[in-house]
Amino acid sequence: MNAERLKKWKLKIHEVIYGTHTPAGRLFDLLLLGLIVYSVIIVMLESVPYIDKEYHNFLNISEWVVTILFTLEYILRVITINRPKKYIFSFFGVVDFLSTVPKYLSLFLVGSQFITAFRILRLLRIFRILKLVRFVGESNNLIRALNSSKTKIFVFVFFVIIISVILGTVMYIVEGPENGYTSIPHSVYWTVVTLTTVGYGDISPQTPLGQFIATMIMIIGYGIIAVPTGIVSAEYASGMSKGDTLDTGRACPNCSSDVLQSDAHYCRQCGYKLDDH
Amino acid sequence: MNAERLKKWKLKIHEVIYGTHTPAGRLFDLLLLGLIVYSVIIVMLESVPYIDKEYHNFLNISEWVVTILFTLEYILRVITINRPKKYIFSFFGVVDFLSTVPKYLSLFLVGSQFITAFRILRLLRIFRILKLVRFVGESNNLIRALNSSKTKIFVFVFFVIIISVILGTVMYIVEGPENGYTSIPHSVYWTVVTLTTVGYGDISPQTPLGQFIATMIMIIGYGIIAVPTGIVSAEYASGMSKGDTLDTGRACPNCSSDVLQSDAHYCRQCGYKLDDH
Amino acid sequence: MNAERLKKWKLKIHEVIYGTHTPAGRLFDLLLLGLIVYSVIIVMLESVPYIDKEYHNFLNISEWVVTILFTLEYILRVITINRPKKYIFSFFGVVDFLSTVPKYLSLFLVGSQFITAFRILRLLRIFRILKLVRFVGESNNLIRALNSSKTKIFVFVFFVIIISVILGTVMYIVEGPENGYTSIPHSVYWTVVTLTTVGYGDISPQTPLGQFIATMIMIIGYGIIAVPTGIVSAEYASGMSKGDTLDTGRACPNCSSDVLQSDAHYCRQCGYKLDDH
Amino acid sequence: MNAERLKKWKLKIHEVIYGTHTPAGRLFDLLLLGLIVYSVIIVMLESVPYIDKEYHNFLNISEWVVTILFTLEYILRVITINRPKKYIFSFFGVVDFLSTVPKYLSLFLVGSQFITAFRILRLLRIFRILKLVRFVGESNNLIRALNSSKTKIFVFVFFVIIISVILGTVMYIVEGPENGYTSIPHSVYWTVVTLTTVGYGDISPQTPLGQFIATMIMIIGYGIIAVPTGIVSAEYASGMSKGDTLDTGRACPNCSSDVLQSDAHYCRQCGYKLDDH
Repeated sequence: MNAERLKKWKLKIHEVIYGTHTPAGRLFDLLLLGLIVYSVIIVMLESVPYIDKEYHNFLNISEWVVTILFTLEYILRVITINRPKKYIFSFFGVVDFLSTVPKYLSLFLVGSQFITAFRILRLLRIFRILKLVRFVGESNNLIRALNSSKTKIFVFVFFVIIISVILGTVMYIVEGPENGYTSIPHSVYWTVVTLTTVGYGDISPQTPLGQFIATMIMIIGYGIIAVPTGIVSAEYASGMSKGDTLDTGRACPNCSSDVLQSDAHYCRQCGYKLDDH
Repeated sequence: MNAERLKKWKLKIHEVIYGTHTPAGRLFDLLLLGLIVYSVIIVMLESVPYIDKEYHNFLNISEWVVTILFTLEYILRVITINRPKKYIFSFFGVVDFLSTVPKYLSLFLVGSQFITAFRILRLLRIFRILKLVRFVGESNNLIRALNSSKTKIFVFVFFVIIISVILGTVMYIVEGPENGYTSIPHSVYWTVVTLTTVGYGDISPQTPLGQFIATMIMIIGYGIIAVPTGIVSAEYASGMSKGDTLDTGRACPNCSSDVLQSDAHYCRQCGYKLDDH
Repeated sequence: MNAERLKKWKLKIHEVIYGTHTPAGRLFDLLLLGLIVYSVIIVMLESVPYIDKEYHNFLNISEWVVTILFTLEYILRVITINRPKKYIFSFFGVVDFLSTVPKYLSLFLVGSQFITAFRILRLLRIFRILKLVRFVGESNNLIRALNSSKTKIFVFVFFVIIISVILGTVMYIVEGPENGYTSIPHSVYWTVVTLTTVGYGDISPQTPLGQFIATMIMIIGYGIIAVPTGIVSAEYASGMSKGDTLDTGRACPNCSSDVLQSDAHYCRQCGYKLDDH
Repeated sequence: MNAERLKKWKLKIHEVIYGTHTPAGRLFDLLLLGLIVYSVIIVMLESVPYIDKEYHNFLNISEWVVTILFTLEYILRVITINRPKKYIFSFFGVVDFLSTVPKYLSLFLVGSQFITAFRILRLLRIFRILKLVRFVGESNNLIRALNSSKTKIFVFVFFVIIISVILGTVMYIVEGPENGYTSIPHSVYWTVVTLTTVGYGDISPQTPLGQFIATMIMIIGYGIIAVPTGIVSAEYASGMSKGDTLDTGRACPNCSSDVLQSDAHYCRQCGYKLDDH
């Protein structure tokens, strides 16, 4: 009978942690969201020298609290799911793991900036929470439009890169190292800066011919910025008539994939029976 | 009988101040528009050291004249409306109040730059005037398109912020404080400057790897600029077939909300009888 | 009989100068186009100190030749048209006059840079030539789309200006003169530079709060760039189904307005009989 | 019979080099693609002083290997095609030739940077390979949209140039050489930098009037960026309903033009009988 109760407990915790269709599940997600945002702000503030100097202890303790809470959550996620391996090696499983590890490592590896900065990956956890919330259902059409224009955007980016390499080489020949165009990769970097209309100004053409070519590059960049926009606009408009699928806020207790239909009795991914509670 | 006359007077002044469907009301709005623009220009010129030095007296007197006129208008607005409290605590009521107060405060708090700059909020008053004028009816479709794409734009901005934080942290690790990326928030600032193609150039990547990542960020920024445009274009196009509602230029004398139908006999908001004059 | 011959001559020259439906008229336009481009290049080169130094004589003589040719053309335009006054005070009449005058004035007013630069207005003459050429007929739809979205674009620009003034004032308060934000107009200038994603970097926020606000301004700018694009896209798409009017390349010899229908017998503007030649 | 065998060999090699509808042809294209990318990376690395210094020998040998392979391929292309002259003087024929020559020339002309940089043109060869691959068929619609909006984009660019010249001259008069606007061409360069929202900041307006005009230019630039986008969006959307033509991956062994229909028996360009193998 104890096993039965344990199973029931596991199912309940699973519902709270993975699902959003119960009040407790929604509250849990909200708290987790707050914790993630709070921990990311701590990571950012820690990197500011004068803030870290003054509030070092407070930031350090906060970080430990957050890390321990994330660790607890990770353990609960692993033990309440039927197939833990699938979760552990899934994208969000790895992200959850990486959210907890850096702080523990910092005990052994003192001052390793690289590893502490890894904690920023906690931000990715937000996507999981949002995925389950209704509100993102709004952007389904957007994602569909981006998906169907993926190949075209890729072709476009590919053309931009080839154009940048050729024009960058031309500028390297015209301006030369004495005007800051020290190498072809550096000139290509400048060309991308110009073509995308970023324009830092750390390097800028000095010779009249270089400025003339730069003018041409800018006008080209101005013209081709229209292309990805045109693609997405058209795809998005054509997709607007199609309906949106609903999000039920439930997750399969077996494989943690989303349950998309509210009247589903079995998981669409693993066939697990959903409604035995 | 005096009360009757007073009531009639109140109604007439109300019509002039709040409405635009009478010649006097239109003239009043035009004068107010001129006064607002004039007062904002004074605030701006006052902040230019060499202009303030030379024309200090003229600017000061102008400011006092404008403040007194705005005060008079505010008093008239309060006494001619049936429910003054509703007006006083409405958005435009607060803006109207904040337009007059700073100058009076400057008598007691000498040299408080913060408070004098508050006067720039007078600009917001322009929106009230324009709201009542036909001409803005033109932009109804635009506002509708923005409204219906609000959530999507928000989701998009949210993604941009998350991407910026992650990429900013990557650049902080790659470039480090010695190249100007002094902290994670500062690197995130740089990432937004780059992703939005602003590109000040106050910080720019110095290492080859940093420049390579920056190049990638720029091309990503170039690609995703298409997303909000695509959304607004499609929403706007889909909204173009729908009709526009008319603006009658009248306001309810009781609660000051707009009267949208020219044949309305009662206020749509408070049920006040509109046509007893 | 002499008057008759003179009238015939006038008509012939008129056809060559104003029309493009005869081979001679097309050749004249082509030569004029070349002359305009040539003269603009001369004006530009004259302003470059080291080129002007070396080729001063050549540029000066070229300029005189161009000026005399433009003067001759101007005189011919005046005497071959039936109603010279209408031409002289028309937009292109004034532009034609201003194309010739500066060089003559330079004889009396030595070294007046302002007046010589006026010659750049000759560029506007290109629009007259192009107006008569078929090729621009292609952009009719574009002009129609711009025309119908004129008011909305204006409303949008108006909002951008108000937002810039308010945000500029906020930045003036936050950053202050010690960080380069010397006055409100200067801060507004910076805000426009940022909002439009130009980003010179001559001024950039130094305080953390200023950088945070700047980040917000950039993301706003990124979002609202979608608005004018969305408007023009939708208007253009909706206009694409409508037909384009043809351009016959003929002009009325009486009032110089375009003849739009190839089978027209009378001028649509002044009723002049067109086909008596 | 030897001639027969030779003809058969020629046809087989032709199929591998020019076509992509056989496994060998696809493998050849893949290898060529890799070789091109590899050789372009070598050209880029060679231009970086400290990399060239350390790995000079390795880069030099790699370059020789690539050059010899490209030379072999060029010779095979010439001898396996029926009309070599047509290939040699075609666009890709010239590009293939220019991909091999610079390294041989470097034996005679020591240190000629200009000629070695020519090798970057090898990048253009990628387009030939991609042209034959299915995947680009995806971008057919994009190319069609760009094609049909070509004239309008050109008209737009033309207007941008005229506006830039006029506004550049205005800024030259307003700011003058003492503020960095040394000549009209230089001011025009600045105007394009501003109008396209690149904004290097190497020159920026210093006078209040100049900053005011710059603000106007930026807002104009912000507004007109909508135009090319609107055109491409609308054209692309209108083209989306039309079908895409298929790419069969075959090329005519006589004139090397693409065979577009899979059931074609004769070359659409030169009438050569296609299916005698």
